[in-house]
Amino acid sequence: MTRPVITLTTDFGQADSYVGAMKGVILGICPEAALVDISHQIRPQAIQQAAYVLASATPYFPDGAVHLVVVDPGVGSERHPIAVQTSRAIYVAPDNGVLNIALEQDPGRLAVRLTESRYRLPDVSATFHGRDIFAPAAAHLACGTPLHELGEELRLADLITLPNLKPRPEGSTTWLGQVLHTDHFGNLITNFQCTSDQAFDDQLSILLAGERIVGLKRTFADVEQEHLVAYVGSSGRLEIAVREGNAAALLGVDVGEPVRVEGWS
Amino acid sequence: MTRPVITLTTDFGQADSYVGAMKGVILGICPEAALVDISHQIRPQAIQQAAYVLASATPYFPDGAVHLVVVDPGVGSERHPIAVQTSRAIYVAPDNGVLNIALEQDPGRLAVRLTESRYRLPDVSATFHGRDIFAPAAAHLACGTPLHELGEELRLADLITLPNLKPRPEGSTTWLGQVLHTDHFGNLITNFQCTSDQAFDDQLSILLAGERIVGLKRTFADVEQEHLVAYVGSSGRLEIAVREGNAAALLGVDVGEPVRVEGWS
Amino acid sequence: MTRPVITLTTDFGQADSYVGAMKGVILGICPEAALVDISHQIRPQAIQQAAYVLASATPYFPDGAVHLVVVDPGVGSERHPIAVQTSRAIYVAPDNGVLNIALEQDPGRLAVRLTESRYRLPDVSATFHGRDIFAPAAAHLACGTPLHELGEELRLADLITLPNLKPRPEGSTTWLGQVLHTDHFGNLITNFQCTSDQAFDDQLSILLAGERIVGLKRTFADVEQEHLVAYVGSSGRLEIAVREGNAAALLGVDVGEPVRVEGWS
Repeated sequence: MTRPVITLTTDFGQADSYVGAMKGVILGICPEAALVDISHQIRPQAIQQAAYVLASATPYFPDGAVHLVVVDPGVGSERHPIAVQTSRAIYVAPDNGVLNIALEQDPGRLAVRLTESRYRLPDVSATFHGRDIFAPAAAHLACGTPLHELGEELRLADLITLPNLKPRPEGSTTWLGQVLHTDHFGNLITNFQCTSDQAFDDQLSILLAGERIVGLKRTFADVEQEHLVAYVGSSGRLEIAVREGNAAALLGVDVGEPVRVEGWS
Repeated sequence: MTRPVITLTTDFGQADSYVGAMKGVILGICPEAALVDISHQIRPQAIQQAAYVLASATPYFPDGAVHLVVVDPGVGSERHPIAVQTSRAIYVAPDNGVLNIALEQDPGRLAVRLTESRYRLPDVSATFHGRDIFAPAAAHLACGTPLHELGEELRLADLITLPNLKPRPEGSTTWLGQVLHTDHFGNLITNFQCTSDQAFDDQLSILLAGERIVGLKRTFADVEQEHLVAYVGSSGRLEIAVREGNAAALLGVDVGEPVRVEGWS
Repeated sequence: MTRPVITLTTDFGQADSYVGAMKGVILGICPEAALVDISHQIRPQAIQQAAYVLASATPYFPDGAVHLVVVDPGVGSERHPIAVQTSRAIYVAPDNGVLNIALEQDPGRLAVRLTESRYRLPDVSATFHGRDIFAPAAAHLACGTPLHELGEELRLADLITLPNLKPRPEGSTTWLGQVLHTDHFGNLITNFQCTSDQAFDDQLSILLAGERIVGLKRTFADVEQEHLVAYVGSSGRLEIAVREGNAAALLGVDVGEPVRVEGWS
């Protein structure tokens, strides 16, 4: 068997022992697993941001990877812990929409609720299902336990769907979307997914925060320093940046900021 | 042999090369080790916080794990580098009390001072014993060197003890404790360790920062949004939180804040 | 073959999926690799800081390690992605000077430009060469592909050199250098590289930010609390700290601050 790979995406930060405890649980069940942090700095309970960050990394992992996501405002309430198998990977997460973008790229084939108690820790706390339910499930799946053993099947069509993940039309070629994520450099990643045809479109007009940017460039280096630039980012989405600067700070915008695009087809 | 596991807990942050250099030393000695970060964001030299964060993760690691802790205000002074073996794990740390909580949960059986120079790097710096003494000791232990080879035995009763780790009585059922850790969500973890009987006690009265909270809930979801809630957290301790909010910010409190509990038995 | 080791040093931060995507690419090519983060908190595009942080960790890794560095203000412009083999390691980075200090410690023997498309991802984006060019190159090299297969040879003498990495003379024994890095504790690491003879020099006089510090101590513990102290740090460089305090904050200085040393020989 090839080496199991488990990725972790949470809103736990890295100052506490929460991520470490999850990894301890995993290594007790599946000692050979390679553990890879995608991000633990999702904003607390920001499901849409987590959905984007997860889906921008998963295509680059080898087949068979298990992706564990714990951004879970509903812990302790009635939301269900689930696992979803696709042709390339297995996702383990709360059923709150956080898998929406990943499953659009790589559709689910089988989903289960994580109801089987023998694949949980013996004592399940009320507040830390990441450690007590999700981590052991991910470890068992990575080490070969078939998905259907972990709980009762769930119809894929019944998975929770997030609102506002995609832009909506305002006219024949005008669409209203939003900023999905602001990265470490202050680049703004939007929910406009581009095709390769659009990559160099010099007719698109982008409006946000009172600014208008006309035309897509290939990269930052195609504008002057400290100028705004729009381009198709490394995850295939429309991004707005400032060359050698911070667009989020310059424009004073954050996740959720409306973005209007004219000339989008 | 099963795969060796080494955890790391420090106050080094993650911006510098200090943690990376320690991991390089470890992999040179014990190449198969799985390295797991518990936290590198302990506040500089906050031994009590480190003691808590460490002990809240270690119970979840497989037997035989080596837990390396470098929160070491005394580096370069007379404090001793030590290693302590328990029935489940080995701890490597400065002898400054940072292991107190972990060893209360999982008592020591044998302790040594890390005096043997062949288990150190050839040149020991005055300021970075994490790299030069602690990391090589952890790596040798994880790869099978018996504890007694690393130095002279130290009586377990002679290990340094931290003050104020536990609440003290102020009356027959009133106790004065403190906030031990504020987590990434602003939840306040106190030094009151709860039994399972106490988990739903609706008579307890908790006073901190001029606020009084009456009764323990099962989880955040049992109060309204933005309300204060007290509950037994995932590490078995009394915690105070704000549902979908930040208790540390709301109350303006930090590590060390006094917490009084009435009706504690 | 021993277990491959790959280290990562970037200015990507840890909130986004960028580092995770690079690790996914690596594990798809070289599944057994041990992945070690050195730092992802290099200031955006701070090549000199990255050069220092990298070189302070690499001597502690086992022979054969591959060190991947992506601090790359020139992504999308004409700078070249390169790999350099030394007697102890392989470095993969943009050719922008970020390897200067590491290669001074451990000189290059062979350098290539990463031009061979079969060692890149099939689609190379304009903005994320870390994922599309550097990570696959590091993974192939760690798993045994010979360096010369990755592209055309480059003369070592033609590698880009950074200005201001070393102090320059202002008189026979007075030199002007700078702060290269401020660490998590606020300690100031300068570009003065010390010999072991200098370690306890009590004649040196150090001037920065209007303060004068006379003489080198062995460690922090040799001065009173909250006093300034100069010493030879764990990477062999002249450092300035405040015992149990933060020198960067106290003096209000940052990376690039001039440091004058009198009595340096």
